[in-house]
Amino acid sequence: METPWDHRYAMRTQRMASSAIRELLKLTEKPDIISFGGGLPAPDVFPVEDFKAACMCVLDQWGPQALQYGTTEGFLPLREMIARHTARYGLQITPDNILITSGSQQALDLIGKVFINRGDHILVEDPTYLGALQAWNAYGAEYVTVPIDDNGMNTDVLEDKLRTGPKFIYVLPNFQNPTGVTLALERRHKLIELADRYGIPIIEDDPYGQLRYEGEHLPSVVVLDNQFRENNGHPYRGNVIYLSTFSKTLAPGIRLAWVVAPAEVIRKLVQAKQGADLHTATFNQIVAYEVARGGFLDRHVWMIRRVYGERRDIMLDAMEEYFPSGVQWTRPHGGLFLWATMPPEMKSAEVLKTAIEQKVAFVPGEPFYALGGGHNTMRLNFSNATPEKIRLGIQRLGNVMKEQMAAKGLLQKI
Amino acid sequence: METPWDHRYAMRTQRMASSAIRELLKLTEKPDIISFGGGLPAPDVFPVEDFKAACMCVLDQWGPQALQYGTTEGFLPLREMIARHTARYGLQITPDNILITSGSQQALDLIGKVFINRGDHILVEDPTYLGALQAWNAYGAEYVTVPIDDNGMNTDVLEDKLRTGPKFIYVLPNFQNPTGVTLALERRHKLIELADRYGIPIIEDDPYGQLRYEGEHLPSVVVLDNQFRENNGHPYRGNVIYLSTFSKTLAPGIRLAWVVAPAEVIRKLVQAKQGADLHTATFNQIVAYEVARGGFLDRHVWMIRRVYGERRDIMLDAMEEYFPSGVQWTRPHGGLFLWATMPPEMKSAEVLKTAIEQKVAFVPGEPFYALGGGHNTMRLNFSNATPEKIRLGIQRLGNVMKEQMAAKGLLQKI
Repeated sequence: METPWDHRYAMRTQRMASSAIRELLKLTEKPDIISFGGGLPAPDVFPVEDFKAACMCVLDQWGPQALQYGTTEGFLPLREMIARHTARYGLQITPDNILITSGSQQALDLIGKVFINRGDHILVEDPTYLGALQAWNAYGAEYVTVPIDDNGMNTDVLEDKLRTGPKFIYVLPNFQNPTGVTLALERRHKLIELADRYGIPIIEDDPYGQLRYEGEHLPSVVVLDNQFRENNGHPYRGNVIYLSTFSKTLAPGIRLAWVVAPAEVIRKLVQAKQGADLHTATFNQIVAYEVARGGFLDRHVWMIRRVYGERRDIMLDAMEEYFPSGVQWTRPHGGLFLWATMPPEMKSAEVLKTAIEQKVAFVPGEPFYALGGGHNTMRLNFSNATPEKIRLGIQRLGNVMKEQMAAKGLLQKI
Repeated sequence: METPWDHRYAMRTQRMASSAIRELLKLTEKPDIISFGGGLPAPDVFPVEDFKAACMCVLDQWGPQALQYGTTEGFLPLREMIARHTARYGLQITPDNILITSGSQQALDLIGKVFINRGDHILVEDPTYLGALQAWNAYGAEYVTVPIDDNGMNTDVLEDKLRTGPKFIYVLPNFQNPTGVTLALERRHKLIELADRYGIPIIEDDPYGQLRYEGEHLPSVVVLDNQFRENNGHPYRGNVIYLSTFSKTLAPGIRLAWVVAPAEVIRKLVQAKQGADLHTATFNQIVAYEVARGGFLDRHVWMIRRVYGERRDIMLDAMEEYFPSGVQWTRPHGGLFLWATMPPEMKSAEVLKTAIEQKVAFVPGEPFYALGGGHNTMRLNFSNATPEKIRLGIQRLGNVMKEQMAAKGLLQKI
C-alpha cells in the first residue's frame, strides 16, 4: 500500500541494495543449513566464560559508568591498550590517533561520509570487500579497479590506474575478503612507492591480520609506509589509515573495531560519528578492555588460529577430493575465506540455487566486483562450520557443480 | 603538519562541527564540575545489579549466539517485546515495522541517509534537538522552523510553513529536548490534520515519553494519526515515523533504540543500516530484552519518575530562589531538561565561561536553533546531578547571572 514516504526517498537510495551476505545470513539461521556463507567466526571459539567474568568485573568495578554515555572517541584505557598493541607491530601512535567504532563497517561508513563526494573514484581490488562498496555507494562513489592474483593486488597494473586520480586506495592486504589472498611484501613496497609518487593516500583494512595459520607475519602497509617516509626524509607521516576489529579475535556480536589515522583525520571522523551514533556502547568497550587486557586475547588468538587453520586444511582437502577438475581455488595462509573459480560457462548463482536445496550455502562472487564480473566465482567461509560439516558441505557442493558442469558438457571437455 | 588527507575531505564536512554537547561531556567528566550539561540519566538509577543478572542469564542461556553476528533488523524477541509494549499505547504493529538502532542518534542518521537530498528542507521546532540537526546537516539538509511556546510547536504558524514544501516535519512532542515543553493535545490534532492536508509526513522523536512526573499521559502523534486516518477512511496508515529508545529508561551506555515505521520504510532503513554498521550489538539487544521482560522495566521507570520528578522540583525551587528576576524558564511535566531565557542583552556563552570557573556547566541554547538565534537561552539538565548539587549549582549559576546582569545594568531596570 502506498505511504506518504514512497516518493520521498533520497537519490542515494537508488544505489543501496540489501547485501547478499546479510540476506544470506538470515537464510543460514536455519540450523540444518551448512553455511559457507557469512564471515562468521566459529561459535565454539567464543570465550563465553571469560566474557561472563569480564561483565561481572566491569559492573562491579565500573558500575554506573559502564552504562552511562561516553565520549565519541572511545574509552580511553581501551585506546591506550590498542596503542600498546600496535606498538608491538612497529607503529608508534597515541590514543589521539585512534577512534573506536561500532564495527569496521562503521569505520568504512564514516570514511565515506568524511571523504567521498558524489562521483569521486575509489581505487579498489577486483574483487573487493562488499561491505566497503555498500558503505561508499551511499555517498555516490565510483570505482577504479585493480585485479588481484595469488599475491594480492597486481601492482604492475596499479600505476596506470593511479593516473586516473582516485581519491584513495582501498586495500585488504592480509587474507583478503573475499579471496583469502595476501599482498606479497614486494608488492606492499611497490604500493607504498606508487601511492607516494602519485600523492594518493591508502585505506588499509586489516580484520584478519592476527589470524595467520602458516608463513611469516608480513608488516602491515601502515608500518611499511612510515618506514618508507622516514627513510626518504618525508616531513609528514599518515598516508595510510588503518582499520582493525575485535570481531574476529573476540566476538562480532559486540560490534567493536577501531581506526588508526592522523589526529586531524580522527577529529573529522569523530565529528561524523557524533552525528551517526554519538559513541560506541560504553559497556562493550569496557568489557572488551577487561577481556583483552592481561594477555587473554593473545592466548585466545592462538587457540583460534589452531581451530581455523585445521578447518581451512579440511576444506582444502575436501575440495581436492570432491570438486570437479576445471574448478580452481585459492589457498589462503590465514583469515576466514577462500575463493573458488568455476569454468566461465558456469554461474555461481545457479549453483547456489541447487546447493541451498541440498542444504549448503555460500556467497556468489559477483557482488564483490565493483564494476561487475565474476559470475563463475564464489566465496567459501571455512571458520564457521564444524570439520564434519565442512567435509559434508563441500561434498554436496562438489556434486552440484559436477551435475551442472556435466549438463553443460564441461566435465567431458576436461 | 600537513597530511595527504588534508585536501580530500568531502564537501559535507564543511557543515559538520563537533557538537557542543559532546565537547561539554568531555569537560564534565571532571568530578568537581556540577553539570547541568549533557542529557545524562542519573547514575544512581542505573539498574547495575539487574543488568549483571541479565548478562549472566544471557551468556548462560544464549551463549555463543549472544556474541555472534545478528540480522540488521534486530533481535526478533526484542522487536516482538517492543511491539507488545507499543500495543499498550494503542499502536498495533508487527516486528516488520520495527528496526533496532544503535541509539536514536543512529535512527536520525539513517533517516537522513534514506530521505534527505542536498537542499531538502526539513521542518523543525525552533529550538529543536541539536543531534538531529547534526545528523541531517551531513546530508545537506536546510531547515524551515516553527516557533514553540509552553504548549509546544505553534501550530498557528505551521500552515504557512508547510506551504514551503518541507520533506518532512520533525517534532519532539513530549518534554522536548531542549526546552522541556510538551505539545498540547489540541495541537497534536492540528499538526496531524495540517500534515495530512499538505501531504507532509512526520518524524516523531519520543525519547522521554515514559518519563512524565505530573499530568496525564498524552497519546503520541503516531497513535493519533492512525485514529485520524481510520476516522477519515484513509486507505493508508504510516504518515508518522516514531522513534524511541532504551537510553533514558534503562541505560544510554548500551546504545539501544528503535524506529517504528511502515514496513517498506523499515526495509530502506535496513539497507542503510547494513552499510552503516551491519547491525546493533547482539549482546546488548539480548541483555536489554532480558532486563526488560517480566515487567522489570515498568517498575524501574516508576522509580526513575520519582527520582527525576523530585530533582526537577528541586531545580525549579532553586531557580525561584537564586535566579535574578528578568530570567524566565519552562516548567516541564517530564523529561530531563528545562530551558531558561535571560534578557536579550545577556549572552549564555559568556555566562557559561564564568560558570565553568565556578564549576558549573550547562549547554548554551544557540546551537539548538536551526537558523540561528537564542544567544540568551540555555538548556539545564535536572536528572544527572544529586539534589544537593542541583541547589548548589543553581545558586552559583544565579550568582553568575546576577553579576553579569548587574554589570550590564539589567538588575536595576527590573
